[in-house]
Amino acid sequence: MTTTDVRADLYPSRVADRPTITERLDPVVHGDSSGPLDPEVLAGYEDDGFVVLPGFLGGERLAALNDEVDRLAADEALAEKPQAIVEPDSRALRSIFEVHRLEGVFRDLVHDPYLVGVARQLLGSDVYVHQSRVNLKPGFRGREFYWHSDFETWHTEDGMPRMRAVSCSVTLTDNHPWNGPLLLVAGSHGWYVTCVGATPDRNFEQSLRRQEIGVPDDESLSELVRRGSIRHAVGPAGTVVFFECNAMHGSNGNITPQPRRNVFFVYNSVENALEAPFAAPGPRPEYIASRDFTPVPV
Amino acid sequence: MTTTDVRADLYPSRVADRPTITERLDPVVHGDSSGPLDPEVLAGYEDDGFVVLPGFLGGERLAALNDEVDRLAADEALAEKPQAIVEPDSRALRSIFEVHRLEGVFRDLVHDPYLVGVARQLLGSDVYVHQSRVNLKPGFRGREFYWHSDFETWHTEDGMPRMRAVSCSVTLTDNHPWNGPLLLVAGSHGWYVTCVGATPDRNFEQSLRRQEIGVPDDESLSELVRRGSIRHAVGPAGTVVFFECNAMHGSNGNITPQPRRNVFFVYNSVENALEAPFAAPGPRPEYIASRDFTPVPV
Repeated sequence: MTTTDVRADLYPSRVADRPTITERLDPVVHGDSSGPLDPEVLAGYEDDGFVVLPGFLGGERLAALNDEVDRLAADEALAEKPQAIVEPDSRALRSIFEVHRLEGVFRDLVHDPYLVGVARQLLGSDVYVHQSRVNLKPGFRGREFYWHSDFETWHTEDGMPRMRAVSCSVTLTDNHPWNGPLLLVAGSHGWYVTCVGATPDRNFEQSLRRQEIGVPDDESLSELVRRGSIRHAVGPAGTVVFFECNAMHGSNGNITPQPRRNVFFVYNSVENALEAPFAAPGPRPEYIASRDFTPVPV
Repeated sequence: MTTTDVRADLYPSRVADRPTITERLDPVVHGDSSGPLDPEVLAGYEDDGFVVLPGFLGGERLAALNDEVDRLAADEALAEKPQAIVEPDSRALRSIFEVHRLEGVFRDLVHDPYLVGVARQLLGSDVYVHQSRVNLKPGFRGREFYWHSDFETWHTEDGMPRMRAVSCSVTLTDNHPWNGPLLLVAGSHGWYVTCVGATPDRNFEQSLRRQEIGVPDDESLSELVRRGSIRHAVGPAGTVVFFECNAMHGSNGNITPQPRRNVFFVYNSVENALEAPFAAPGPRPEYIASRDFTPVPV
């Protein structure tokens, strides 16, 4: 093989006309046993691709986070910014991006020593924040989030080279089985499902409201469920869920009067910093995929 | 008060411009303790408005019912009949009505001595079949059924005078928490939520695909949930659920590859036979609301 300017792409997707399921090429746990998670929990994460830890926060800290979400949701100036994503069928707020750059409770949460410690343990290096957002799933008419691997999008659209990132979701309301909790396919992080269809220009303007490119085909999803199993992440407000960047996940809609809120952020290894997108016309904006690779201080 | 030809309407709905929540005026259990349900189960039904009984059927009988659904779903002539209801956004089959009039496994099921025995115990009289259908909630893109009290519709649109009917749902696939199982508000059967908005002509053509008239307003639904609690009816294929005609129920969508199917039928007391609709331009068709009040044989 001669030297060319074509990069090696370990995880090609959105380039072929048929989907494939291939084996993951990266470790799941990049660090060693030193860190907040004990070996049993770490082994569970390695097998399932996620771990649910109830009781991470409560009381005044939980109340302060919910107050801040209320304040942001009522902020009419914010609603006009690109960081605010509204539901496809209405003007209801669905997500607010880049909350870790706001001074105050969200920034403090993303810098929380326990959460950063877990991320460092899982990723085996210093970490930085790739993305952060608040998700609001309203009651009565909350919409589903269809199945996807975050890594598939981050690789193709953001240029994340390897599977060495972890998502962290802190629930701000109780997650019941019936109000649209996070669903995961346990074991799916071990398989890479390539998607069909080239990424349209500025795809993110559509995909953050309703994802159509970068979702698995029915047969591949069925196969992942046969190889693994569907689980739901339920628990009281203040539960934290860590899930591997390639874990297949989604959530059903919510007809109950019980809304669902969480703060979601992604730690990526500083050794896995973004490059040019692998399969998209151009990179996504900074508020969706940060290119500030400054490590979170420890 | 002088004698007029205006009937007494104990449960007016779709007539006022504001919703109300009023107390139920009928017993929940109309019979006595004689019947298949023991006193403890009967007390649970009286309190919650429903009872979930796993293990009702399995083996060859379950397989035969699923085979029959497959056969009906593939029947192109049936798909053109009004009895076949398709999803609002696609041509996918959502329900098939009037299956108890088909010779064979469905008719046998509706005449099952245990099921009829339970219905007679709950309703305290001979019973007839008010409605029957197969519901298919496909995987991947199964749509929600929004909250509703069946009785509110049966009263206003079908002329069912009193709360003396019971719905029976036999699951033909496993019902997990995540594939859109039946949700119920325990205790809601004790309250009558009136709905706003007059019934349009031939409303059923719309409402069976996506119900918009005859659904509770957000505040009334929230109040029912505060007074009671949300529960889900999960269990393996072959579970039977009895729920009271006024129990508030619905189901979320289903993004999983695991479809959900059930056979649903309604036993009504022969002493509660349909009259003219209480709040609709005309009665619904026979295949939705039977006016053949012949008792199911015992």
